[in-house]
Amino acid sequence: MKKIIETVPNFSEGSDKAKIEEILSVFRGKEGVKLLDLHRDIDHNRMVVTVIGEPDALKLAIIEAVGVAVRIIDMRTHRGEHPRMGAVDVIPFIPIKNMTMEEAVTLSQETAKAIWETHHLPVFLYEESTPISARKNLANIRSGQFEGMSEKLKYPQWKPDFGGQEIHPTAGVVAIGARMPLVAFNVNLDTDNIEIAQSIARAVRHISGGLRYCKAIGIELKERKITQVSMNITDYTRTPLYRALELVRIEAKRYGVNVVGSEVVGLVPMTALVDSVAYYMGLEDFSIDKVLEAKMIE
Amino acid sequence: MKKIIETVPNFSEGSDKAKIEEILSVFRGKEGVKLLDLHRDIDHNRMVVTVIGEPDALKLAIIEAVGVAVRIIDMRTHRGEHPRMGAVDVIPFIPIKNMTMEEAVTLSQETAKAIWETHHLPVFLYEESTPISARKNLANIRSGQFEGMSEKLKYPQWKPDFGGQEIHPTAGVVAIGARMPLVAFNVNLDTDNIEIAQSIARAVRHISGGLRYCKAIGIELKERKITQVSMNITDYTRTPLYRALELVRIEAKRYGVNVVGSEVVGLVPMTALVDSVAYYMGLEDFSIDKVLEAKMIE
Repeated sequence: MKKIIETVPNFSEGSDKAKIEEILSVFRGKEGVKLLDLHRDIDHNRMVVTVIGEPDALKLAIIEAVGVAVRIIDMRTHRGEHPRMGAVDVIPFIPIKNMTMEEAVTLSQETAKAIWETHHLPVFLYEESTPISARKNLANIRSGQFEGMSEKLKYPQWKPDFGGQEIHPTAGVVAIGARMPLVAFNVNLDTDNIEIAQSIARAVRHISGGLRYCKAIGIELKERKITQVSMNITDYTRTPLYRALELVRIEAKRYGVNVVGSEVVGLVPMTALVDSVAYYMGLEDFSIDKVLEAKMIE
Repeated sequence: MKKIIETVPNFSEGSDKAKIEEILSVFRGKEGVKLLDLHRDIDHNRMVVTVIGEPDALKLAIIEAVGVAVRIIDMRTHRGEHPRMGAVDVIPFIPIKNMTMEEAVTLSQETAKAIWETHHLPVFLYEESTPISARKNLANIRSGQFEGMSEKLKYPQWKPDFGGQEIHPTAGVVAIGARMPLVAFNVNLDTDNIEIAQSIARAVRHISGGLRYCKAIGIELKERKITQVSMNITDYTRTPLYRALELVRIEAKRYGVNVVGSEVVGLVPMTALVDSVAYYMGLEDFSIDKVLEAKMIE
C-alpha cells in the first residue's frame, strides 16, 4: 500500500508573483507529488503551501524547493507581520496514509540533513522530530526572529541540529519536524458576550482542565454579532471533533447559550470526519476502510 | 481534473479460483485502473468485482475482462442460486468524480458496442443508459435467465441493443448501464418484533409513501434477537443518509422502539458521509472540497 505524507512549508514571500510561481513550479508535474493548496498573505509577506505525495518523491521536491527559496529570497530585506526566521520558515511533515509518526520523523530528519548538506541552510528539528523539550515548540526556536538568530546560535543550547553556529547569510535558518495533522475547528454561539465564549474556551481546552488535545480561545464575530469558540484539535484521533463540539454545547448550557453552527478551516482529513459521523449515526464496525475514496488512494 | 468512474461487474463464477484469478488479473497492474474489492459467493456461484479508474482505461480493461469471461465460463453447465443470464451478468458504471451521469451513459454505450463487436456477446442497456422503461430495471431484462434467453430474444421488444436476436451460445447476454452509486444502509432496532421493523420500512420507503430515493424492508437479526430496517439509498445526494436514519428513529417512537445502531454495507462514497456529518455537526459552508483526501484524488 502506498505511503502518503503531507508537508505544509511556509515560505517568506507573499507578494512577488514571479518568485511565488518559481517556488510552486517545483511541486507541479512531478510524479508522486501533488500541490493541493496555496495560502498567501501580503501583510504577512508569507505563503503556506500544502503538498502531498509519496515520501521519497516529496522529500526530493521539498529539498529542491528550499534550494529555490534560498536562492531568490533575501531575508536581509524581508519585512512582514508574521514572525519568521528564514527564507523557508518551517517545514512540518504530517503522516496521512499508511505511515507511522516514526516514519515521518525519519523522513523529516533525512530531509533536514540533505537541506543542510545541499543548501548550507542550518536546520532545527522540532515537534516529534526532536527529543529536546525546549525545541518541540516552534515559537521557542523562532523567538528572536531572523534578525536575532546570528546571536542566538552562538549559545550552545541553540546550536542547530544540522549545520554550524552561523546562519545562512541571506536565508537564515529553518525548522523541520513531524507532527500530527491538526484540525482548526470553530463552534459558533448565539451570544455576543465574549466573556461567555472565553469561559467556554477555558472549560474545553487542555491547558485549563479540558480535553487533552484541544487548544481554544473565545473570539468575537463582530459582523455577525455572535461569538465563537475557536479551537485547534491537535490530535483528532484522540480528541475527536464530536467530543469537542458536544462539550462546548454542554458548557454553553450553563449560560443559556446555544451552538448555532460550526466550521472547519482549511482541509480536514477524512478520518477526523469518520469518527464523528460514526458517533452521530451509531455506525457499527465503521472505519476509514469503508470509505470508497480511502480505498482509491491506498 | 481527472475523471474517475467505478464499475462493479458481476461474473458467473464464484468457486473456481483459477478462473477467478484469470479474470481479476486483467484489472491488476494496469495504468489508470484499480481493483478495489472482490466479493464472491460459492452458493451464488458468482463474484462481484469493484474497480475504479479513468474512463478510457477502465473501458479497455472491462472489455478485456469480458473477453476472458466469455472464453472460460460456460453457462450451459453453470449452476448457482442467484439469478443470472450470462457469463458476465451485469456491468454497472457509476460516476465517482468529475464525471456527469451523461458521460457515464456515453461510456457505457461505447463499452457495450465494443463488447458486441469484439466478443459477439449481445448487450442490453439498462438503468440510465436506456430510454426504454421496460429495460431500466435489471430484473425485467434478466427474467427467464440464461436458460430462457434464447426464446426471449425472438420477441421484437427483447431484441438486444447491440447484437442480433441470438444469445452467445456459451456466454448468454449481458446488461450494461450507468447508474448512481447506491448505499446499502441498515438501521438496527431494539425489538425482536419483525412486524414493527416491517411497518417502519413501509413508512420510510418511497414505494409506500416515504423518501424518494429509499427502498426498505424489515428483517430479523435472529442471532442478536433484534430487527433491522434494511435500506438501499439509491440517490444519497437527494435522500441523504441522516434523513433516512432520523425518519426511522421518528417512526420507531410510535412503538416505543429505539434505534440501537446502524451500518453501511460495502464501500460508501465520502460524499454520502459529508452530508450527514455536516448535518449533525451544523458545519457551515462545508462540502467534499474541504476534505483532504477528496483533493488528493482530484
